[in-house]
Amino acid sequence: MHQEPLPDRLPVTDRTRHRRLREQGSLERPQLEAVLDAGFVCHLGVVVDGRPVVVPTVYGRDARTLYLHGSVAGRSLAGDTPVCVTATHVDALVLARSVFEHGVNYRSAMIHGTARKVIDADEKLEGLRRITEHATPGQWSYARRPSRKELAATTLLALSLEEASVKIRTGAPEDGDGPDAALGLWAGVLPLTTLWGTPEPDPALPPGIAVPEHIARRAGTRHG
Amino acid sequence: MHQEPLPDRLPVTDRTRHRRLREQGSLERPQLEAVLDAGFVCHLGVVVDGRPVVVPTVYGRDARTLYLHGSVAGRSLAGDTPVCVTATHVDALVLARSVFEHGVNYRSAMIHGTARKVIDADEKLEGLRRITEHATPGQWSYARRPSRKELAATTLLALSLEEASVKIRTGAPEDGDGPDAALGLWAGVLPLTTLWGTPEPDPALPPGIAVPEHIARRAGTRHG
Repeated sequence: MHQEPLPDRLPVTDRTRHRRLREQGSLERPQLEAVLDAGFVCHLGVVVDGRPVVVPTVYGRDARTLYLHGSVAGRSLAGDTPVCVTATHVDALVLARSVFEHGVNYRSAMIHGTARKVIDADEKLEGLRRITEHATPGQWSYARRPSRKELAATTLLALSLEEASVKIRTGAPEDGDGPDAALGLWAGVLPLTTLWGTPEPDPALPPGIAVPEHIARRAGTRHG
Repeated sequence: MHQEPLPDRLPVTDRTRHRRLREQGSLERPQLEAVLDAGFVCHLGVVVDGRPVVVPTVYGRDARTLYLHGSVAGRSLAGDTPVCVTATHVDALVLARSVFEHGVNYRSAMIHGTARKVIDADEKLEGLRRITEHATPGQWSYARRPSRKELAATTLLALSLEEASVKIRTGAPEDGDGPDAALGLWAGVLPLTTLWGTPEPDPALPPGIAVPEHIARRAGTRHG
């Protein structure tokens, strides 16, 4: 089936319109993809018995669909279910002169839509491949792939990337040119950096099995 | 008003009962507090027009209440509103022999309840103090505190820490003693570490204002 690519400009809907701090909002698809690609754990929100439930889960994507590992939330989902998926990276504390202007530099993507459970075995395999490769590029061709039985035991959710929005805050505090600047207080940002560490072998691993290159080369590099 | 301390053992409810991977669940309050204290950004889930909305926000706490900066979500909240707050730290990728056994080492706290908007000015100030000190210990006594007007312009949410659960996964993959161990593949965990960086002064800062000690001493230390 031929599908038109999703438009680069994300649609403005009641849920994606940026109302607060307009300057931080983005509806550009490349920014959405960049934020999603910077991490591998998102928070999936569903409504269960009229109340919200928010669970962390891993994800991957292609150009139009977000795939989510849905083991926990999936059980609660009957058929097509409204969801909200939010993926956030915290980049720095914004330390202003006044408490009121304190904040966080961050990148956050929010996707609204209706999640469907993936049933088709081929799509399920492809979705799992996307999730696996998203977290650990190279791992799909290294590890043993799912058996038919394992595939059946896996709950995979698919969510269209159609309706989404991005919020990004960068840079210094905003009270540098206001009256509080005269207080003589230090202001600036305190960055947070996430790094991949050194691979730790499973204690059950027999000697002589080297860390594969696609994992070893990540050690010490920046994540996010 | 005297209040009994919340019990150390979190109550088992329909929403906090651990159903999947029982060994990861905890209902011990000290673990809840440790997970909450390890970070400062959570994901707040609310139901708007029957659909979930999940937004990142900063938080702080005392022994019985979580305080949340509610600017975005707060607008949608009329009166007391069911919420779910989830705070998650990602500690490592779990790289097993089989894709099926892949996972994430993480610590996640989930709090269910009814959020109320804080109206009382004293409680609001105290909630903001908790949030500020939670993210940056020492900052409340350093920065300019909120004026009455700023306080009125701030939406603060309070959520009881009564109903909550914690999930933690640590350690190696679980297929080290199964048939896949014979595949001869490397397996283990790839840790993620988050570090505080070097404070970056606001470009608008006049020369000669030193980074205060409570901020400077964080540089290079581990977050989370």
